Amino acid sequence: MERDIFKNISPLDHRYSIPEEQYADLSYYLSEEAVIRTQAEVELALVTVLHKWGICSVEVVEEVAKACAEVTPEEVYHEEQKTRHNIRALVNCIRNRVSPEARPFVHFSATSVDIMDTSAAIRYRQAAENLVIPTLQELLSALMELAWAERETVQIGRTHGQHAVPITFGFALALYVSRLGQQIEKIKAAADNLRGKMAGAVGAYNASDLFIEDPLKFEEEVLAEVGVKPAPISSQIVQPEYVGDYVHHLVSVFGILANFADDMRHLQRTEIDEVGEYFAPEQVGSSTMPHKRNPINYENVKSMYKEFMPRMITLYLDQISEHQRDLTNSASGRFVVEVIAGLVMATRRLTRVVKKMWVNKAQMRANFAKTSESFIAEPLYILLAGYGHPDAHEAVRVKTLQAQESGESVYQLILKDDNLKEYWNRFTPEQKLLIQKPENYLGKAVQKTELIIREWRERIR
Amino acid sequence: MERDIFKNISPLDHRYSIPEEQYADLSYYLSEEAVIRTQAEVELALVTVLHKWGICSVEVVEEVAKACAEVTPEEVYHEEQKTRHNIRALVNCIRNRVSPEARPFVHFSATSVDIMDTSAAIRYRQAAENLVIPTLQELLSALMELAWAERETVQIGRTHGQHAVPITFGFALALYVSRLGQQIEKIKAAADNLRGKMAGAVGAYNASDLFIEDPLKFEEEVLAEVGVKPAPISSQIVQPEYVGDYVHHLVSVFGILANFADDMRHLQRTEIDEVGEYFAPEQVGSSTMPHKRNPINYENVKSMYKEFMPRMITLYLDQISEHQRDLTNSASGRFVVEVIAGLVMATRRLTRVVKKMWVNKAQMRANFAKTSESFIAEPLYILLAGYGHPDAHEAVRVKTLQAQESGESVYQLILKDDNLKEYWNRFTPEQKLLIQKPENYLGKAVQKTELIIREWRERIR
Amino acid sequence: MERDIFKNISPLDHRYSIPEEQYADLSYYLSEEAVIRTQAEVELALVTVLHKWGICSVEVVEEVAKACAEVTPEEVYHEEQKTRHNIRALVNCIRNRVSPEARPFVHFSATSVDIMDTSAAIRYRQAAENLVIPTLQELLSALMELAWAERETVQIGRTHGQHAVPITFGFALALYVSRLGQQIEKIKAAADNLRGKMAGAVGAYNASDLFIEDPLKFEEEVLAEVGVKPAPISSQIVQPEYVGDYVHHLVSVFGILANFADDMRHLQRTEIDEVGEYFAPEQVGSSTMPHKRNPINYENVKSMYKEFMPRMITLYLDQISEHQRDLTNSASGRFVVEVIAGLVMATRRLTRVVKKMWVNKAQMRANFAKTSESFIAEPLYILLAGYGHPDAHEAVRVKTLQAQESGESVYQLILKDDNLKEYWNRFTPEQKLLIQKPENYLGKAVQKTELIIREWRERIR
Amino acid sequence: MERDIFKNISPLDHRYSIPEEQYADLSYYLSEEAVIRTQAEVELALVTVLHKWGICSVEVVEEVAKACAEVTPEEVYHEEQKTRHNIRALVNCIRNRVSPEARPFVHFSATSVDIMDTSAAIRYRQAAENLVIPTLQELLSALMELAWAERETVQIGRTHGQHAVPITFGFALALYVSRLGQQIEKIKAAADNLRGKMAGAVGAYNASDLFIEDPLKFEEEVLAEVGVKPAPISSQIVQPEYVGDYVHHLVSVFGILANFADDMRHLQRTEIDEVGEYFAPEQVGSSTMPHKRNPINYENVKSMYKEFMPRMITLYLDQISEHQRDLTNSASGRFVVEVIAGLVMATRRLTRVVKKMWVNKAQMRANFAKTSESFIAEPLYILLAGYGHPDAHEAVRVKTLQAQESGESVYQLILKDDNLKEYWNRFTPEQKLLIQKPENYLGKAVQKTELIIREWRERIR
Repeated sequence: MERDIFKNISPLDHRYSIPEEQYADLSYYLSEEAVIRTQAEVELALVTVLHKWGICSVEVVEEVAKACAEVTPEEVYHEEQKTRHNIRALVNCIRNRVSPEARPFVHFSATSVDIMDTSAAIRYRQAAENLVIPTLQELLSALMELAWAERETVQIGRTHGQHAVPITFGFALALYVSRLGQQIEKIKAAADNLRGKMAGAVGAYNASDLFIEDPLKFEEEVLAEVGVKPAPISSQIVQPEYVGDYVHHLVSVFGILANFADDMRHLQRTEIDEVGEYFAPEQVGSSTMPHKRNPINYENVKSMYKEFMPRMITLYLDQISEHQRDLTNSASGRFVVEVIAGLVMATRRLTRVVKKMWVNKAQMRANFAKTSESFIAEPLYILLAGYGHPDAHEAVRVKTLQAQESGESVYQLILKDDNLKEYWNRFTPEQKLLIQKPENYLGKAVQKTELIIREWRERIR
Repeated sequence: MERDIFKNISPLDHRYSIPEEQYADLSYYLSEEAVIRTQAEVELALVTVLHKWGICSVEVVEEVAKACAEVTPEEVYHEEQKTRHNIRALVNCIRNRVSPEARPFVHFSATSVDIMDTSAAIRYRQAAENLVIPTLQELLSALMELAWAERETVQIGRTHGQHAVPITFGFALALYVSRLGQQIEKIKAAADNLRGKMAGAVGAYNASDLFIEDPLKFEEEVLAEVGVKPAPISSQIVQPEYVGDYVHHLVSVFGILANFADDMRHLQRTEIDEVGEYFAPEQVGSSTMPHKRNPINYENVKSMYKEFMPRMITLYLDQISEHQRDLTNSASGRFVVEVIAGLVMATRRLTRVVKKMWVNKAQMRANFAKTSESFIAEPLYILLAGYGHPDAHEAVRVKTLQAQESGESVYQLILKDDNLKEYWNRFTPEQKLLIQKPENYLGKAVQKTELIIREWRERIR
Repeated sequence: MERDIFKNISPLDHRYSIPEEQYADLSYYLSEEAVIRTQAEVELALVTVLHKWGICSVEVVEEVAKACAEVTPEEVYHEEQKTRHNIRALVNCIRNRVSPEARPFVHFSATSVDIMDTSAAIRYRQAAENLVIPTLQELLSALMELAWAERETVQIGRTHGQHAVPITFGFALALYVSRLGQQIEKIKAAADNLRGKMAGAVGAYNASDLFIEDPLKFEEEVLAEVGVKPAPISSQIVQPEYVGDYVHHLVSVFGILANFADDMRHLQRTEIDEVGEYFAPEQVGSSTMPHKRNPINYENVKSMYKEFMPRMITLYLDQISEHQRDLTNSASGRFVVEVIAGLVMATRRLTRVVKKMWVNKAQMRANFAKTSESFIAEPLYILLAGYGHPDAHEAVRVKTLQAQESGESVYQLILKDDNLKEYWNRFTPEQKLLIQKPENYLGKAVQKTELIIREWRERIR
Repeated sequence: MERDIFKNISPLDHRYSIPEEQYADLSYYLSEEAVIRTQAEVELALVTVLHKWGICSVEVVEEVAKACAEVTPEEVYHEEQKTRHNIRALVNCIRNRVSPEARPFVHFSATSVDIMDTSAAIRYRQAAENLVIPTLQELLSALMELAWAERETVQIGRTHGQHAVPITFGFALALYVSRLGQQIEKIKAAADNLRGKMAGAVGAYNASDLFIEDPLKFEEEVLAEVGVKPAPISSQIVQPEYVGDYVHHLVSVFGILANFADDMRHLQRTEIDEVGEYFAPEQVGSSTMPHKRNPINYENVKSMYKEFMPRMITLYLDQISEHQRDLTNSASGRFVVEVIAGLVMATRRLTRVVKKMWVNKAQMRANFAKTSESFIAEPLYILLAGYGHPDAHEAVRVKTLQAQESGESVYQLILKDDNLKEYWNRFTPEQKLLIQKPENYLGKAVQKTELIIREWRERIR
């Protein structure tokens, strides 16, 4: 069923589905086609294990395998118009393609949700392995590379939007490496922990127990065919917390991307101007205002976050299913793929921008210089206190105000003050140098950056 | 650009976009095609008023009108690959179709968001007028008809899931008529209050003020062409609260639908069995369990609510746009149409089910009878108190327990008790009848139902 | 029951409840004491109208009035330990204080929720009238005063965090006046539309209909005693959308405050430095870093928004109450007062800061100057196009690049270009002046500001 | 500072803070007193390690220990009125109590957030260990006991609110044991993974690096004093995802409790009546309607869930903090304790109810019997198919309809049908018995229940 994409309603299926080559892999794992493909895989797994347990012949497996490979979404939807039931439609489409002997074994003893929830586990895990994690790792690598390159680039640290004390730009990036890296590992763990089921209409193996000696073992083997573990106990549906944890970590990553995007947007402000997207020399802004280089990609990432983050509420609401299940998680559950798609799209965009980020070191230095005289009050106060000055805080405050008024540096004023000079003389050469050259007041910013990058080089292998 | 719908990611664009005839009108107002169509309308309105103000010739208007009618989304997207800017792409597509003389007047003095935000106001208002409100009114009518038909059908009122005192089924429905009716009016008011702008890059009419004597009046006239009022003051964007209020009322309606769906689901429980979907005599359940008539449509409505209600958070987040605007409401704003689509889809489904609802009056009576002896304690206690019994509550409590043990009715026990009988004799005949026939303890359920339905017959005209 | 406030769990009841004088009025309308006080008011209103209708004597009213004035929360809670029911506890406390003759008329024919939901309507309306709206109006007045004072203070408009074209600082503030003013009116409308009920256990007046001729009229009169209108039809509870709409507008205001706070935070950045909190000359920062003036009040407002905005989800969830009601909106409903308290606290804080805001005009001018050469490309391009230049956009783009390289102004370069000079000569003197003095490119910023402030001076009366 | 609790605004601090003995431990870990107590612990830990590293004397540690033990919240708040800074206030209060020699070492080289974020980690971990997890484990134990006791109690399984196929009541409970148990483990893991910091104003150890050889090691040792691990890298604040993950699992547990509460509420419906709160023989309902036993505790749990679940949004929003931190997570972060308090309160309530749950086995059997003839169609169909019937589904459907019309059992009808009887004869005795005695169609419900309970007996040790 073909349709003009511009007649689609969801931006995911028109605006953000172009160019096609970036959309194709998302579609492969997240579309309705993927749903039906993986559901057929589960039906095949069931028959495969029925054969292993001697319940049907190998020919049945072969017939079903062929049928499953051939069945199309369009055909299933056509059948569903009659059956009014999506899995029954799929089953009919498979059965219609096999011999009368094979038919009874298709979907044998299964309930619809056995197929659907296991299919979801397969798809979410595959999406994690093949879309989400590789995409995030590419971003992580880009961030690591940039952080390493900028590990010694001095930048003023900012708290409350105000200049505080120095860091390096690489150090600021290393924090994102650490946050992102940890959540990637948590996504992986949550994806690996997704569960399926083959336990029947109420989870008690009522039907499978009729013919199958050990239906728990049977369930385990069927699910193993598609690389999924069974939930420890199910109702008609798999316990919802597995998918809930998974989406929580996706949403958490979205928050990290949004934080990073906000930081870069602000560093790109006209007055700050410390980073920007790289513009090739021949490239010109399309606007009449050549001074504007809008951070539209960072803005897009933040905006996607605002769209998808709140959807975690839906996952929480879907934890509630009455008794052995109601169907009120059915439609809502179908939209989980949108969150995955949104995250992958945002990550790819961010990766492109990070890879060609332009760091304006001159402007970083210029911004740094604006307040270096002021923040040096912090180490000065601590050093005086450390060397026993009884009222270091007040002494520094007074000198800082004098420096602001006179235009002299705090350092010069100290040398002129006999009392303070006495403490000054106890300072080590490094400590003195630090007061004279505020860009040295970096703490362990460089070393910590290196530590973090080295750690994650190991961990992402 | 054609694509197999089963390759789409959003369920709105595959599963819930079939059958096509139910999707076509949603697509007409909510798709990307609608975006570009209404944006072109705004561009045309601009040129139309430029002509009225003597700034361009009537031929320019004619040329632009023709161009706007011809431009296609595919063409615009193709152009956007070059311009990297959606409105500039549209403007180029229009300009390429007109004479060099007409070109300067296309988009003259406008900023992109003048076009985009005004287009959004048009679309959301049209969607309200042509999709949301008519669909909700059809549901309202179906509910009113059913409520009227069942206004005297006695049903036990339920609080805490426990039998309380009587109502009629029509009375229960009339509450939904009232709640839904009021929110429809609020949606209409919010839709009529959506605003556009033609105030330029920062909302101060900087560009239009160059050539146009009274740019505020000019803005008003351009927007009047497309049936939209200007915001009292704008930044680059229209104040976000207009759309926020609009979506709030959409979401509020979703809550009402969900509440109704839950009520019906529970009345359809095997043990309660008071309502159901109508099944034609020849129709059979597709399941092997003919006793099961699952409330799948009500469940779907609840599920759609769970998906779309949380998205109000996005609207709240989009209230925040820095200074004269950042773009972080751009991607997220594109998804508002999904909420509208979800609501219309859920409403249509619910309307179909309400129209063929089967009311099991026999079972309503049977359920009612289970506890009528018990709840009669309430009026009895009030009547005794009203006639001056000093400790009516305790007296009734004792008799009720006796009735439960002995199997006699409370009424019979009162007649046997000399003290209580004295009060009994003061009761009016209607009051006595009510104790003997608990189904009469209906208060004003019938009259209120009639009142509400009559009121809304007037108000929805 | 006294308790050390530092043993309280909610920050609203320790940290943000000091100083006491700022907390006392919040507590008066929003505490548990307020709940019991207004519930007693409803009980008294009921007896008052029972007397009007001739059902009880005036002495009963007097006795109940006295009892209601005397009853204390502590007493009610003590009683509740026995009754396990809060309204029954209150009723017992009142009954214990009146004569045996009066007792039957206390709470006569009412159900608990008649009292509770009506009490909530009273409290939320009173909180709107006496807390929320006056507090917001004080903020509005402060903003209006500042906007008027700064209506001609030229500031660079910022989109995407980038310099765009000029506005005035007053114009930026006027947008907030307009947004805030409209939402204040909506809060007022929603508060006035809050509803009560006196319709009994399932909303059908079952009990009141036993003795009262016209229970709908009776309900109206009881509620009129406490200044509340009845819901058109109720179940055991009042339709939830009235409170939902009310809280939606509270949350919407919170979004506006957060947007404003963000804007000011960013204008206070070290590199931008256009606004700040006023510091008295003798006042010193407590930090060792005298350059830091952290926007902690704006940050607090944003943070309170993040805490309270998401709670709208609870209101939406509370729209769903099964059949004639379940109690799952009971505990959650008790927390609505926290949202009101949070909003009032944030508004008061913001008002204090706005009233002593320091506008750094010198820095505004300095920031403006950074890019005025660049943005002038916009009006230049429009003027050239308006005077018939066939390719104005490209011509300006080239000149702007030349200006950046050569250091000359665009204006000078135009005069040197024979072709462009020809168009230049057609410009009006005002148009020429504007290109030469970019601070004149203000559009209608000043006039619109005046218009908005004048309008709201009228509307808030 | 004493205050009447009924003047408090938050229900957590009035209604739900009584009785005091249930509130005292919550207050101990979650109040403002707890904040200041644990902040003082961190200050002490800092001095302790300064001594270990030879930077200050043991006397300093002793003095500070004494001061930290004595300092009161009231005193700190009084001081804060002067300093306008909470940590500076605490530090002053400690310093005022120690000798001039000790003063410089109090808070030496630390930034405020070092103290605050580490204090939060301590409190959330302690709250998990001492409040949340023990409370949840008590609920888990109660559920396990009940599940074990009811592991063979046959109950009809319900899907879509409709009777499906059999389970046991214990099996239904075992699912909750499994879900709850897993989330308890996840809470524990998330609590153990909470992190602190002692890395200074921007996380780069700028200040501590002045005097301390290895500030990373130093940080580790200080935090070890209070049982907390350092974040791998920090800005001014600890990475927000640690607390985010922690609250996610709290909220997830809330969802499980809400699901359970809903299930029990519905099983307690008048028409279903399978469970109830235990009422002692002498106990009477306080209502005039003795038939009503409202599930108010389950309703309260659901309601608390609706209040607290949406607050996860705040945690997600607090992931975003600009550059090296803004303060917009400060106020909102203070409310995390409310979520913990709400969860503990709800869990305690639920535990009380579960411990005295009354299982109405007679009614379970009666409900079961209503549809046992119908659901037996499922195993019959599967058995016929398994024994080779070519069209088992249709054959059973026809017989089931005949059974409904004739009143005969399906089993009897099969014996009358020569064709079907042939297949019947191939059934094993167990299979025949199952069709005759539908309560045997239990699959592995009993065994799975035992498996799960045994597993969790091990895991909760």
